[in-house]
Amino acid sequence: MSTVVAYLGPEGTFTETALLEFHRRGSFGSGDIAKLSVESPHEALNAVRSGVARYACVAIENSVDGPVTHTFDALADGQGVRIFAETELAIRFAVMVRPGLTASEVRTFTTHPVARQQVRQWTDRVFPGAEFIPASSNSAAAKAVAEGRADAAVAPYRAAEIFALDVIAEDVIDVPGARTRFVVVGRITEPPKPTGHDRTAFVFTLPNRPGSLVSALTIFADRGLDLSRIESRPTKTEIGTYRFYVDVRGHVDEPDVREAFRELAQQVEDVTFLGSWPAF
Amino acid sequence: MSTVVAYLGPEGTFTETALLEFHRRGSFGSGDIAKLSVESPHEALNAVRSGVARYACVAIENSVDGPVTHTFDALADGQGVRIFAETELAIRFAVMVRPGLTASEVRTFTTHPVARQQVRQWTDRVFPGAEFIPASSNSAAAKAVAEGRADAAVAPYRAAEIFALDVIAEDVIDVPGARTRFVVVGRITEPPKPTGHDRTAFVFTLPNRPGSLVSALTIFADRGLDLSRIESRPTKTEIGTYRFYVDVRGHVDEPDVREAFRELAQQVEDVTFLGSWPAF
Repeated sequence: MSTVVAYLGPEGTFTETALLEFHRRGSFGSGDIAKLSVESPHEALNAVRSGVARYACVAIENSVDGPVTHTFDALADGQGVRIFAETELAIRFAVMVRPGLTASEVRTFTTHPVARQQVRQWTDRVFPGAEFIPASSNSAAAKAVAEGRADAAVAPYRAAEIFALDVIAEDVIDVPGARTRFVVVGRITEPPKPTGHDRTAFVFTLPNRPGSLVSALTIFADRGLDLSRIESRPTKTEIGTYRFYVDVRGHVDEPDVREAFRELAQQVEDVTFLGSWPAF
Repeated sequence: MSTVVAYLGPEGTFTETALLEFHRRGSFGSGDIAKLSVESPHEALNAVRSGVARYACVAIENSVDGPVTHTFDALADGQGVRIFAETELAIRFAVMVRPGLTASEVRTFTTHPVARQQVRQWTDRVFPGAEFIPASSNSAAAKAVAEGRADAAVAPYRAAEIFALDVIAEDVIDVPGARTRFVVVGRITEPPKPTGHDRTAFVFTLPNRPGSLVSALTIFADRGLDLSRIESRPTKTEIGTYRFYVDVRGHVDEPDVREAFRELAQQVEDVTFLGSWPAF
């Protein structure tokens, strides 16, 4: 039986490209996978929690498929899941048309409105005066071109393969350097073995009191653990109470990380271990 | 002459609703304003930097008009602007149709794809089988209904007023409690006077070294300053280097905040004061 992996679809999104990269690297095991396209990170994680999917592939940093804040909320909103792997993609779009069409013939173009913001200078220059048609995903944009509802789509390269379109430009992006980090989320089992180059994530809630964040973070600093990432999100239940998502360098099987977790659990209102996995 | 205020438009977005709230509160002064609709937070801030607009109104937390990470990047990417005011809106959608149409007659509905993720359960229940048509903004969705290109739009209440539509449902949202924080950004002048209930923001870059974040944050904790919010964003120039955006309770004219800023400036690679303003 194939291993079911839920992802923000449909086929041809950046998230699907990341999923295929994870599959090549064996993150889902060595067997076949069945891709389950869903409509939000929340739905992807719920598919794992309910047992419909074995894994979910979701963006966790700087996504153009949709706000990544939804992923943090989905991770924190319930127990039962952990992160097992990560990868990064450089965010660059391909511009695709039906075979035979040239850039100067493009009168309409389509993409997700969030992606459009990131390629606006390019499209203004290359498709001056062309009409923008919003799409519900970058992949849906490519499909619209294949079906003749728009002349050009701005989408991941992979979407051109799926819909048999011609790529007329690659590496399109107004501000270069944007990358998106994706993770594999699964039900709770043992974390992958330490590699010496790992990342560990926690999520915890702090009381609204001066210094509470610093004393929580000092737990990591005192052990020389590198805090590679920190996010705060307001809790929805109480104004002024924040939930923090923290990434540290290291593995929970290493004494420093394990003890930091124990000390954190004593000090804060609630803390959840979100996994240890090899850093990209 | 009217005071020009740039915002993520067009008319009828949540950002425009926030702008009107700021105007009611006198955040742009007592005179008339001219609203300048732009297509991204980056463009809004550039309008201020170039002098085209006196102020910009942008989302800074949890927006449904588009990813708020763009706002942080736009704030940090250049000098010359500060935050002067803030407000919060509860994110709830109205569902609107052309006068006379009822919910059971809706065959197509439209909204921004990001908004759609937040009302999906509601639309599945009330408009079962209806086709989703993506829009480039929630306001564009309402316009599409006014022009007969869709039966129903999911958009801010204000969009129904603009396009003379009937509201058939209010307070629509799958997961209640979501709020968006908006700020007024302007060119550098003196901050508003302290009110005793203020917020101050800094943005700074840290070397990729264990403990560097904690020692930076200790500067605030040692003075009893409440860190109400912290965000990290990867710098685009160097892998592993992060830029931090920090909100503290207090005003830069208060000795504690002023000295914290001075000490921070000595310790980190670069730090920018982003303003002091009355907390919402």
